[in-house]
Amino acid sequence: MKKIIECVPNFSEGRDLDRIEKIVYPFRGKDGVKLLDYQRDEDHNRMVVTLVGEPEKVKEAVIEAMGVAIEEIDMTKHEGQHPRMGAIDVVPFIPIKNVTMEEAIELSKEVAKEAATKYNLPIFLYEESASASHRTNLAKVRKGQFEGMKEKIKQEEWNPDFGPSDIHPTAGVTAVGARMPLVAFNVNLDTDNIDIANKIAKQVRHSGGGLRYCKAIGIELNERGIVQVSMNMTNFTKTALYRSFELIRVEARRYGVNVVGSEIIGLVPMEALVDTAVYYLGVEDFSMDQVLESRMME
Amino acid sequence: MKKIIECVPNFSEGRDLDRIEKIVYPFRGKDGVKLLDYQRDEDHNRMVVTLVGEPEKVKEAVIEAMGVAIEEIDMTKHEGQHPRMGAIDVVPFIPIKNVTMEEAIELSKEVAKEAATKYNLPIFLYEESASASHRTNLAKVRKGQFEGMKEKIKQEEWNPDFGPSDIHPTAGVTAVGARMPLVAFNVNLDTDNIDIANKIAKQVRHSGGGLRYCKAIGIELNERGIVQVSMNMTNFTKTALYRSFELIRVEARRYGVNVVGSEIIGLVPMEALVDTAVYYLGVEDFSMDQVLESRMME
Repeated sequence: MKKIIECVPNFSEGRDLDRIEKIVYPFRGKDGVKLLDYQRDEDHNRMVVTLVGEPEKVKEAVIEAMGVAIEEIDMTKHEGQHPRMGAIDVVPFIPIKNVTMEEAIELSKEVAKEAATKYNLPIFLYEESASASHRTNLAKVRKGQFEGMKEKIKQEEWNPDFGPSDIHPTAGVTAVGARMPLVAFNVNLDTDNIDIANKIAKQVRHSGGGLRYCKAIGIELNERGIVQVSMNMTNFTKTALYRSFELIRVEARRYGVNVVGSEIIGLVPMEALVDTAVYYLGVEDFSMDQVLESRMME
Repeated sequence: MKKIIECVPNFSEGRDLDRIEKIVYPFRGKDGVKLLDYQRDEDHNRMVVTLVGEPEKVKEAVIEAMGVAIEEIDMTKHEGQHPRMGAIDVVPFIPIKNVTMEEAIELSKEVAKEAATKYNLPIFLYEESASASHRTNLAKVRKGQFEGMKEKIKQEEWNPDFGPSDIHPTAGVTAVGARMPLVAFNVNLDTDNIDIANKIAKQVRHSGGGLRYCKAIGIELNERGIVQVSMNMTNFTKTALYRSFELIRVEARRYGVNVVGSEIIGLVPMEALVDTAVYYLGVEDFSMDQVLESRMME
């Protein structure tokens, strides 16, 4: 059974197309690695790459691209709206098929260790790979950004998991870890009252007493004159898409408003939608192996 | 963009494991061809193979396997419960990804022409590939079975599309064609009254005034004491799974019964379930390209 892992490295270069092509070059034309997407943002001055493939092949390609990024990007001259702490800001590994979370964690640690040694780069493990609970959340790890890291990583609680206790002079520091696939799922309401979207968002999200793997905020869709509960589903295998959808419908009744549609932004794993179809059709004893495309990838 | 076609050849051998392995051998270990499944049935004395891959590679492998089947199977000695007319009874090609129905039809005609010439085998085109409307339905083409084919194909209206106007002495005749994927979808009702299942089946199926690409019959699930509307969805891109499901729910109300679940038998294309999830969640502007696995197969 073929193992497939996803990796979504974020690089601190969103403007120079030559550099961008050099950085993604190691992901092209390699057996066992498929470059699905790379999106750059000029304002953020950042690029998000999505690749999938066999764990060992993805690991090799990512370490190679990290080397290119270190050569190409000088963080002392970097500016952009998005928080960042290194040339390779963050490298998450995501289990997709026949890969357990434990294997994804193990792979992330191998990449962190090898890249730290090879490039003399301080690396933090984060999310599922984190070595301590205060290092789980990327925002906390990154706080202080590139400019503040020189001092921060000298503190014992922020000593890097791998590499030197001093920042790389031009590449800063990097976070590497494993996490579940994120699904960006937004549900539209037939009201222009942002307070209602905010209240419902609070009710469905984990921090407000709602669903364990759901982050949510209210958003105004000004052009359409409606509001939206905008969610990040952080583990669709445990908090299913249909569950947050139906719960929003339930909460919306309190305000006399209706759900009028939804959006899925970016990529979504097949299983998140198959699971939803199986729920609504009440399919008994369904196995993902019955999906033709799932079998094709074995 | 990689083209992917499915082929589900049916061979008239379901008992002799040596012969079965010889027949499927051409589908193993070839670049561009993936053997997904082969199921034999002793009572039917028949084997159904499912393979997917690049059209040209699938074509070559299928023609090769047809040659093996002709060597291995002697229809003059064949007996089994399932109707059959040849050693290779039927060879349907099914467009899966980046392949149009027109391309599948063209491929089926190439296979029919080459195999007919190579093996001196009479071949009928059927379903979407049929050369005349009375040849569309496989049951009509096969009527008379192996034993009756010798006389049947001498009639002008049953002259084969390719190959000689005389049966192959030991391999009979073969039907080759293109069709959409079939989804076997059954919906369970909370009653043991088979009349109700039969009536609903009649109402939802095409022949009874129902959905265009839906065949349906009532079935008793004796062990569970309930009945089922058992359907073949013959084109899920035009008659969606959720549509038949919701229509059965609507019709069931007339009899005061409820839908209590469903089954999907065998393989189902991802798109049939993604489409269903997108319907129930009301996802706006969704594209199949957003499904991670769909991108992985490009």
